[in-house]
Amino acid sequence: MPQVRMSLNETHDAQLASWIESANAPGGDFPIQNLPFGVFRRAGSTENFRGGVAIGDQILDLAAALTTGALRAVAVGTAAANAAIAAAGPVLNELMAGGHEASSALRLALSRALRRGSAQQDALQTCLVPQAQAEYALPARIGDYTDFYTSVHHATAVGRLLRPDNPLLPNYKWVPIGYHGRGSSIAVSGQQFPRPVGQVLASGATAPILGPSKRLDYELELGVFIGSGNALGSRIDIGDAESHIFGLCLLNDWSARDLQAWEYQPLGPFLAKNFATTISPWIVTLEALEPYRVSWQRPSTDPQPLSYLDSALVRSRGAIDIQLEVYLESESMRQEGQAPSQLSTSSFKYAYWTAAQMVAHHTVNGCNLQPGDLLGTGTQSGPEPEQAGSLLELSSGGREPVRLANGEIRRFLEDGDAVILRGYAERPGVARIGFGTAVGRVLPVRDWHAAPDAQADAE
Amino acid sequence: MPQVRMSLNETHDAQLASWIESANAPGGDFPIQNLPFGVFRRAGSTENFRGGVAIGDQILDLAAALTTGALRAVAVGTAAANAAIAAAGPVLNELMAGGHEASSALRLALSRALRRGSAQQDALQTCLVPQAQAEYALPARIGDYTDFYTSVHHATAVGRLLRPDNPLLPNYKWVPIGYHGRGSSIAVSGQQFPRPVGQVLASGATAPILGPSKRLDYELELGVFIGSGNALGSRIDIGDAESHIFGLCLLNDWSARDLQAWEYQPLGPFLAKNFATTISPWIVTLEALEPYRVSWQRPSTDPQPLSYLDSALVRSRGAIDIQLEVYLESESMRQEGQAPSQLSTSSFKYAYWTAAQMVAHHTVNGCNLQPGDLLGTGTQSGPEPEQAGSLLELSSGGREPVRLANGEIRRFLEDGDAVILRGYAERPGVARIGFGTAVGRVLPVRDWHAAPDAQADAE
Repeated sequence: MPQVRMSLNETHDAQLASWIESANAPGGDFPIQNLPFGVFRRAGSTENFRGGVAIGDQILDLAAALTTGALRAVAVGTAAANAAIAAAGPVLNELMAGGHEASSALRLALSRALRRGSAQQDALQTCLVPQAQAEYALPARIGDYTDFYTSVHHATAVGRLLRPDNPLLPNYKWVPIGYHGRGSSIAVSGQQFPRPVGQVLASGATAPILGPSKRLDYELELGVFIGSGNALGSRIDIGDAESHIFGLCLLNDWSARDLQAWEYQPLGPFLAKNFATTISPWIVTLEALEPYRVSWQRPSTDPQPLSYLDSALVRSRGAIDIQLEVYLESESMRQEGQAPSQLSTSSFKYAYWTAAQMVAHHTVNGCNLQPGDLLGTGTQSGPEPEQAGSLLELSSGGREPVRLANGEIRRFLEDGDAVILRGYAERPGVARIGFGTAVGRVLPVRDWHAAPDAQADAE
Repeated sequence: MPQVRMSLNETHDAQLASWIESANAPGGDFPIQNLPFGVFRRAGSTENFRGGVAIGDQILDLAAALTTGALRAVAVGTAAANAAIAAAGPVLNELMAGGHEASSALRLALSRALRRGSAQQDALQTCLVPQAQAEYALPARIGDYTDFYTSVHHATAVGRLLRPDNPLLPNYKWVPIGYHGRGSSIAVSGQQFPRPVGQVLASGATAPILGPSKRLDYELELGVFIGSGNALGSRIDIGDAESHIFGLCLLNDWSARDLQAWEYQPLGPFLAKNFATTISPWIVTLEALEPYRVSWQRPSTDPQPLSYLDSALVRSRGAIDIQLEVYLESESMRQEGQAPSQLSTSSFKYAYWTAAQMVAHHTVNGCNLQPGDLLGTGTQSGPEPEQAGSLLELSSGGREPVRLANGEIRRFLEDGDAVILRGYAERPGVARIGFGTAVGRVLPVRDWHAAPDAQADAE
């Protein structure tokens, strides 16, 4: 079996600095060791969206950089030049399709071109757009979106609310549980959406009514973008799975808990989830995260994974220590200029299943993944109650109010609330790598007039 | 509320005949009153795939017809000409996006051009490709695929196998249950796929093993292609829902029952379904089916639909009487030249929820549908046991063997089995309308070597 393993190289050197000085500021998300990919244009313009790379507080415009020849000058072989062409278009699917070889070659060329002393500085200086002046589009044409459920802490906490006697189902520790989600309603950070309407069965009622969700929630997740795909009928071996992963982003899987409770049996969540999903504009490559790989372990009393989900590399370095944070900014905070209130912190290292296991499981039956497909990790709740990745968990199903920094309380989201996800990896002696933010905001319900059913019930 | 209602017009006239004589043969699927759309090219060629219309045993090549000017000559206004341009490309999404107005105008122009005595006969004679010489592609770029569960008979029968005490869940008669499916593995008739591999928990076992599915099944469904879409955050009213439906096709939702039983809680079917889905190459427009609309009713003792799912038109003509048939052709039948064995017949008129209700429900929370999205109706089992749309039902969960015409028996599908779906509508005095076939075939498992887990378990 092929055992593809990325390795540390000159692009990870913590001593590297960029001629773009903002990239060298401590605590920043986008140093020269990161180089995440996204799709952007100048805000409010009618320019074409095109690929770019975040560096400090700037974006290197890959379409502009291509025309200068600067990337070609520092590229080793033709892979980087071809990758730059693929990355300069309005979606990154073609870059993703090139697999690890393409994105890695481009990363190396970018690192060399952007580091201090590069002969390409003058040429590339004209290819920078400040992030403050940019707007973003989805980085890929997402063919299919699959959401997993990889936090055993989340699965147990949610299961306890729905099935107190049987919180964690018997398949959980054997199967990387996942389900198909909706692609059309995924949008990039900045997404605003009206509070969803749906059928809800009130406690004690015998008939549902249609109405705005009263239990609207976020879910703190990471997204995994697929790079090269596999043919229908073939499978991706666990040893080869990481070479099919392009990179990771932040993902908020907005959820209407009251809709979900009524609709989800027997075929899973549907309208409770498909009204909106928000991702960060930047995709951090798996290669950039290489210094933050950690061992993947499960309690020795738990079942060991079946062999198609197991390998020495999965065990020794299958997990990634990405710190995750959630903030809530209420309408009142926004109006009064207060800082958003932190709700929780967690880490992807707590996931019960790794990204490689998600890929191997998804394809073991011959299902085909395609470049630009998106996998969600599921809510990344950690082992401690304060590490919960949703309000459902933080408020114990809405029973316990969550107090915000400004004194407001929340059980679920209110109109005007913005939820801000952040992610980063840092460790002494290693360059800090950040994901930026994924921000989404709840608007009031739209075009809603209580239907006769609801009126009748309310009497 | 807008109440869009298609109506009978000259295209439905049962007396119409075509100058293509094969279209006038009694019992055919593709008379001039049908005019379904698909995407094709000459088999084995390197031609571009392009839009076509089935007529008798021929295909009218819309790309070729465009160049003759023949369609423009009979078109009323510019809608038909624009629609013909949209339909001549390699996918029909643009035609679909034009909504009912576009496809209806094109249908009228095609009807006039193809009927006996048309002045366009000479020009269009050169634009015909025999169906026997064609190969097909997916008729649309399917953005998202959603599968519903609209047969109460299927839901009850399957529920009885999984939950004998509680076969039909309390939400079923209120919620048009649906879930997201996998788009990438949908293929047009002719699809062949290896038997899927997955985790299965054997009866009485405490640990699952990985292995080829032993309970592989088909599901007899219709597919509903979305025409014009809706913006994210908006909803489609029940009265307007049919104007967002382009047309219907046959759909086989292949299912691995053993994988499904182990994986489906709590988030629904995943690997049990996403390895293959087969649709017919031809999409019959809702307008063509107009003469076969029938009243939609539910037992008076059942709950009445919430108002967002209800309208006078849904009740008076929401259902469609489409006859459905399933045949199995085993390897032995194929080798010995025997006719396929009929497994069951049913009708779409038995569905508990209509296509319009599926659309209204899907968007009530603001979820956006896009042109070319596909909705499955769920397995169309009728009220009688012999009208079951899957082997799971016909064999009572594998307990009762199903005897084929040649004496073979089946509980589930065997390697080499082809499943053939047929659909048609007919009534005295009205032109018969057919869907053609959706054929798919099971190949032996691929690249399978028993994993250590399975070997250990087998000892």
